[in-house]
Amino acid sequence: MAHEAARSRILQATVRTLASQGYARTTARAIARSGGFAPGVIYYHFRDLEEVFVDTLRFTSRARLEQYRAETGGVDTAVELVRRLRILYAEDVEEGHIAAVQELVAAANASSPLAERVRGETSAWHDYAEGAIRMLVDGTPFAGHVPVAELAETVVATYLGLEMLSHLGAGRLGPGGLLDAAEQWAALLDAFRSSIGG
Amino acid sequence: MAHEAARSRILQATVRTLASQGYARTTARAIARSGGFAPGVIYYHFRDLEEVFVDTLRFTSRARLEQYRAETGGVDTAVELVRRLRILYAEDVEEGHIAAVQELVAAANASSPLAERVRGETSAWHDYAEGAIRMLVDGTPFAGHVPVAELAETVVATYLGLEMLSHLGAGRLGPGGLLDAAEQWAALLDAFRSSIGG
Repeated sequence: MAHEAARSRILQATVRTLASQGYARTTARAIARSGGFAPGVIYYHFRDLEEVFVDTLRFTSRARLEQYRAETGGVDTAVELVRRLRILYAEDVEEGHIAAVQELVAAANASSPLAERVRGETSAWHDYAEGAIRMLVDGTPFAGHVPVAELAETVVATYLGLEMLSHLGAGRLGPGGLLDAAEQWAALLDAFRSSIGG
Repeated sequence: MAHEAARSRILQATVRTLASQGYARTTARAIARSGGFAPGVIYYHFRDLEEVFVDTLRFTSRARLEQYRAETGGVDTAVELVRRLRILYAEDVEEGHIAAVQELVAAANASSPLAERVRGETSAWHDYAEGAIRMLVDGTPFAGHVPVAELAETVVATYLGLEMLSHLGAGRLGPGGLLDAAEQWAALLDAFRSSIGG
């Protein structure tokens, strides 16, 4: 395997292992078993497990963010945005992305390299959320009044918090129920935008 | 010490220890040192550390919820609500409540008694948030249109997610910046409510 292909295979195996076994059980041996390679391969491509975890967070976050950008890039109605987000969210769950991120965020101590990476990825998602919010409000009378940065930060925090609760079975309606409500409000927003010729 | 007073002293010491040292270092010895009693006292009042953690989550959640209810109960404007929430939030940080809850939520596995307790406390906070939202929208034309349960679930998730990010230094504006934005919107909402005679 070429270096990059091998690293990517290890990172994918780490996402799956984190999602299925949790952080504490994600040893080099468990990652290797999940990926079908020898544990030594990991240490050939990474300094230590901490580097694997930091790079796994970057890897899964960037892959999903690229997908989110691709799927929502040309969207110009709120209803269509919510519809695409629902599909993307189902993929997040399916691919183990969400469970893996939860495990890594929970394992991060404020001063660790992992926390540094959480800050970096969160920042990239803030930028993405800001762009999506701008698309929705630009050309409406709200445009100058919506605190875009604050709303973007809130949306990212909400996503993480919902995941944390959903992971523990602590939501009543869960993300599905909340997306249903979001879709109704999206329809209202679109009707308003089209009534003002936005 | 009477049984209840002793238990409460142990739970308070556990909140402080979780907040300052993290879950992994919150041993019986560390709790005892923080509370100024012998480690054996803990096992006289609790079956094991798991019971201490489950009861600590209930203890700190209920104490804060009681305070939130007391401070926001008679409030009838959105601006005043946000002002009170800002003070309550500062107390949450100050008392170690937030850090302790973060540690316990991160440590909970979906099937554990601790996760069961997270579900119970989250449910109590959902009820509180629903009441606060109803207070804001009742008597306005939104009343029948606001999905109160969905919004309450989102608010609770947002609070937890913000904490998780703020704990890792991953917010740009942080809870303070978001409360500033909330206060501006609260003023708009109040102006609207008073214009319709609400």
